[in-house]
Amino acid sequence: MARLGENRYGKARVRVMKVVRHATHHAMKEWDVLVLLHGDFDSCFTTGDNSKILPTDTMKNTVYYLARESKSETLEHFAIELAEYIIANNPQVLKVSTEVAEKNWKQVIVDGASHATTYQLAGPELHTTQVTLERGSKPEIHSGIDGLVILKTTKSAFTGYIKDKLTTLPESTDRIFGTRATATWKYSEPPADYAASREAAIATLLKVFAEHDSLSVQHTLFDIGKAMLAAVPQMESVTLAMPNLHCLLVDLNRFGQDNPNQIFVPTDEPHGYIEATIER
Amino acid sequence: MARLGENRYGKARVRVMKVVRHATHHAMKEWDVLVLLHGDFDSCFTTGDNSKILPTDTMKNTVYYLARESKSETLEHFAIELAEYIIANNPQVLKVSTEVAEKNWKQVIVDGASHATTYQLAGPELHTTQVTLERGSKPEIHSGIDGLVILKTTKSAFTGYIKDKLTTLPESTDRIFGTRATATWKYSEPPADYAASREAAIATLLKVFAEHDSLSVQHTLFDIGKAMLAAVPQMESVTLAMPNLHCLLVDLNRFGQDNPNQIFVPTDEPHGYIEATIER
Amino acid sequence: MARLGENRYGKARVRVMKVVRHATHHAMKEWDVLVLLHGDFDSCFTTGDNSKILPTDTMKNTVYYLARESKSETLEHFAIELAEYIIANNPQVLKVSTEVAEKNWKQVIVDGASHATTYQLAGPELHTTQVTLERGSKPEIHSGIDGLVILKTTKSAFTGYIKDKLTTLPESTDRIFGTRATATWKYSEPPADYAASREAAIATLLKVFAEHDSLSVQHTLFDIGKAMLAAVPQMESVTLAMPNLHCLLVDLNRFGQDNPNQIFVPTDEPHGYIEATIER
Amino acid sequence: MARLGENRYGKARVRVMKVVRHATHHAMKEWDVLVLLHGDFDSCFTTGDNSKILPTDTMKNTVYYLARESKSETLEHFAIELAEYIIANNPQVLKVSTEVAEKNWKQVIVDGASHATTYQLAGPELHTTQVTLERGSKPEIHSGIDGLVILKTTKSAFTGYIKDKLTTLPESTDRIFGTRATATWKYSEPPADYAASREAAIATLLKVFAEHDSLSVQHTLFDIGKAMLAAVPQMESVTLAMPNLHCLLVDLNRFGQDNPNQIFVPTDEPHGYIEATIER
Repeated sequence: MARLGENRYGKARVRVMKVVRHATHHAMKEWDVLVLLHGDFDSCFTTGDNSKILPTDTMKNTVYYLARESKSETLEHFAIELAEYIIANNPQVLKVSTEVAEKNWKQVIVDGASHATTYQLAGPELHTTQVTLERGSKPEIHSGIDGLVILKTTKSAFTGYIKDKLTTLPESTDRIFGTRATATWKYSEPPADYAASREAAIATLLKVFAEHDSLSVQHTLFDIGKAMLAAVPQMESVTLAMPNLHCLLVDLNRFGQDNPNQIFVPTDEPHGYIEATIER
Repeated sequence: MARLGENRYGKARVRVMKVVRHATHHAMKEWDVLVLLHGDFDSCFTTGDNSKILPTDTMKNTVYYLARESKSETLEHFAIELAEYIIANNPQVLKVSTEVAEKNWKQVIVDGASHATTYQLAGPELHTTQVTLERGSKPEIHSGIDGLVILKTTKSAFTGYIKDKLTTLPESTDRIFGTRATATWKYSEPPADYAASREAAIATLLKVFAEHDSLSVQHTLFDIGKAMLAAVPQMESVTLAMPNLHCLLVDLNRFGQDNPNQIFVPTDEPHGYIEATIER
Repeated sequence: MARLGENRYGKARVRVMKVVRHATHHAMKEWDVLVLLHGDFDSCFTTGDNSKILPTDTMKNTVYYLARESKSETLEHFAIELAEYIIANNPQVLKVSTEVAEKNWKQVIVDGASHATTYQLAGPELHTTQVTLERGSKPEIHSGIDGLVILKTTKSAFTGYIKDKLTTLPESTDRIFGTRATATWKYSEPPADYAASREAAIATLLKVFAEHDSLSVQHTLFDIGKAMLAAVPQMESVTLAMPNLHCLLVDLNRFGQDNPNQIFVPTDEPHGYIEATIER
Repeated sequence: MARLGENRYGKARVRVMKVVRHATHHAMKEWDVLVLLHGDFDSCFTTGDNSKILPTDTMKNTVYYLARESKSETLEHFAIELAEYIIANNPQVLKVSTEVAEKNWKQVIVDGASHATTYQLAGPELHTTQVTLERGSKPEIHSGIDGLVILKTTKSAFTGYIKDKLTTLPESTDRIFGTRATATWKYSEPPADYAASREAAIATLLKVFAEHDSLSVQHTLFDIGKAMLAAVPQMESVTLAMPNLHCLLVDLNRFGQDNPNQIFVPTDEPHGYIEATIER
């Protein structure tokens, strides 16, 4: 006999853009929303009874409806609002998870000044939040940044590691350190200002990455996490994933040339992957 | 003060192709390997001490080395072998996770017969396995299929769901049901033949998907899982994810035409997402 | 002073699925349509006069409308029909180009037989056509296949090439030959049956690829083209693009192992690119 | 009988990163290089004679070798240098085309200032150049920007177009105008400073896009091209491609809400496509 275990369902890739038209400028945000429900849905699976099923199409409409109603200016507030709406209106739902990813639109610079109503995609990274709300509990809030592509051309070494019969990597005291970083932090309590906290978190990540005398990816990752916790008091923990964007030094001896750390081949695969959570 | 929490590291996207040259034909497999280590790596993070770090570059070399040594003919056997090699040779490693994804190469048909040494990529889906090996324990083995794109043009309904003020979806007794299915099953014990069990699992998935009188994605997903458990005795549980590939009926009334379930617009976003684990 | 040169506009990624419901089975096709217009559109560019502009949104509707009306069973016939409709209904259009790409859906096999109403995506390749219709002329018809991923594990050599001070590639008399082939052929006149001609063209491509004693990609490409022209009398010329999917022999000497043409690393970049047109 | 028509071959996706280590800062560039040769290669196709074939692997090595030798600071100079090297060293080559795409790395801001050795990917767009060099001629140089994602929330209308029985698009006097713009301009003669000319071209594109009272994509495209020609005297012509990133106004009436141009759904497909060349 078979029985239903863990399950969830919802709507993914609900894209919505909101333009608030102020007198002097427009505030524009583009969000990609995910909604996932947990609850009492067993009869749908086992007998095809849809009477407790909120269609995913309706979840999509709910995103549009709330985007219009909402006064939320941050993705965190909107994700909370959406989770609360679904819990309040759907008794069969025990837990809801909402995620919002915001594209990195920046105002275009024209004649040295930010243009009030024109935007440019200013990087591949997404600003993210994930809110989990269980009926009767407070929302659990994670925020983050996903896919921040950064690279430093010095202050990165990798030496002193295990050597065995399969080792071919030469030690390096000055290598390229590139990564497509993802950071996700958990709030122990809501900060006064989600946007300001996010800004502080990201500025700290960039500053430590730039200035760190790196002995390994792990070493830098830990110091970044430590500094982020110091910068944002409401941050309970932060998980950092830093896959390598390897840049391999080219062997130019074959062509009678030296290569004093100048010419590299960037490669996507294979790549190292380092992930850790730093806690208070 | 900050301290290190959960962490892991390893090598991703290690691609390897093995060609076994039999007298009458070649056996070719293309694998994408991931290795992730858990263990005693704290000093690397906190002080930059790399003395317990197996470089991810060496993990890559280990994949190539073992691919040559190995007699494994299934991805499961290779993933187990790789995990065991790392545990055996690295006392600082407490747990290793290895994943192998195999591309769907099939022999090309020439003049009605399979050609012995020529292949064609026969679908986007990947055959997958994930092995987790903790020092001193038996390996835990998951196998699966990732990204199987399937679609049925009848025997799919969706009615009787919750209607509220945000509902716009019309009920349908005969809609298109398309999905990019992913199935991952856990083995309670090793089957006699991983390849045969995989084949049975996938054939069952396809058969139930094709024949089911679907009242919802959930309904079909559950019956697929139930049948997969029945087909493979060593399968302890199976997790199925079935995101919708929505095909929307076009409103042709606007152009003075009827549309008796004939003309649809396939869309990628937004899309429904349904995921559940079926257990014995 | 600036003036308008070459220009065109239209609608891309118009996706449409048509299901013809026969008594014993369904015929399902998924098409991705592109429409591009050339014509008398100067005033739109230079003064913002839209009076001669057929909105791209209307082109999208035209695809849906014609899909419903159409009796076309091949992408070629539909592309011609669409081009003719636009020319007939838009005097300002001098030339229209329509492209249709068809996904490789195949019926699923259940209990050894093709299932009448269930489909599986059976490869990444797309069947393509491009029709160019100038007012007052006959349509020019190209058909093709895009992204056919094929690989042979023997009968491929590469020797006797130029060696200079920058050469590092070793000669090989037995290498892997993988490619993501694209073929586009021009019809001098319509064949009796576009689908049959397409099938013959692709079967020929696969057969010659499999059986050829390849001395280079160029060498095989030419013989494929020659055979395709022989197989389809109405084919005036064929353009083949065969980028390498390189599989590099791993140096296992470093680990005390031999590698008798068994273990390879597939890589996506950089890759060789070879393209040629074969004519009668 | 079959004969060889147009043909070319080369190496694609040759990635190279160059770091010039100045005392106060590093200059870092990441390039993706394509090399394509035209010449006397018939015997390779027709008889498998490789004696005139420069292996694509050697082209890759040539990129690395020249990157080390080169003093070029712009992608244009490097592409010219590479083309000239190949023509000078390969008598069998009649024409070579080289393309270089540069990633948009910018220095990271730390404590309000650009950091000297740390970079961030600052947008999806690529800076591009294409050089065509025929033996005995001067190089023909195109430069450009590929994939600049921009959007304006006002000053965009679309009215007065053709209405027919398939029209459903409502006119709009204030719509969102988003595009993933690609511009390619041809130089009639080398500018004094390729980087400065590129900067002027892109600044002009952004400024006109932001400030234009757009009556259609075509209308804005033309005025952008006109202004770019005015900004860079050596620009002979410019080709602009501006596919729509459609943002559709959501119908909120269904939910009892108004939507005063605030809530939109961004969609990727289908999308309009407009392309034109503006000449002097």
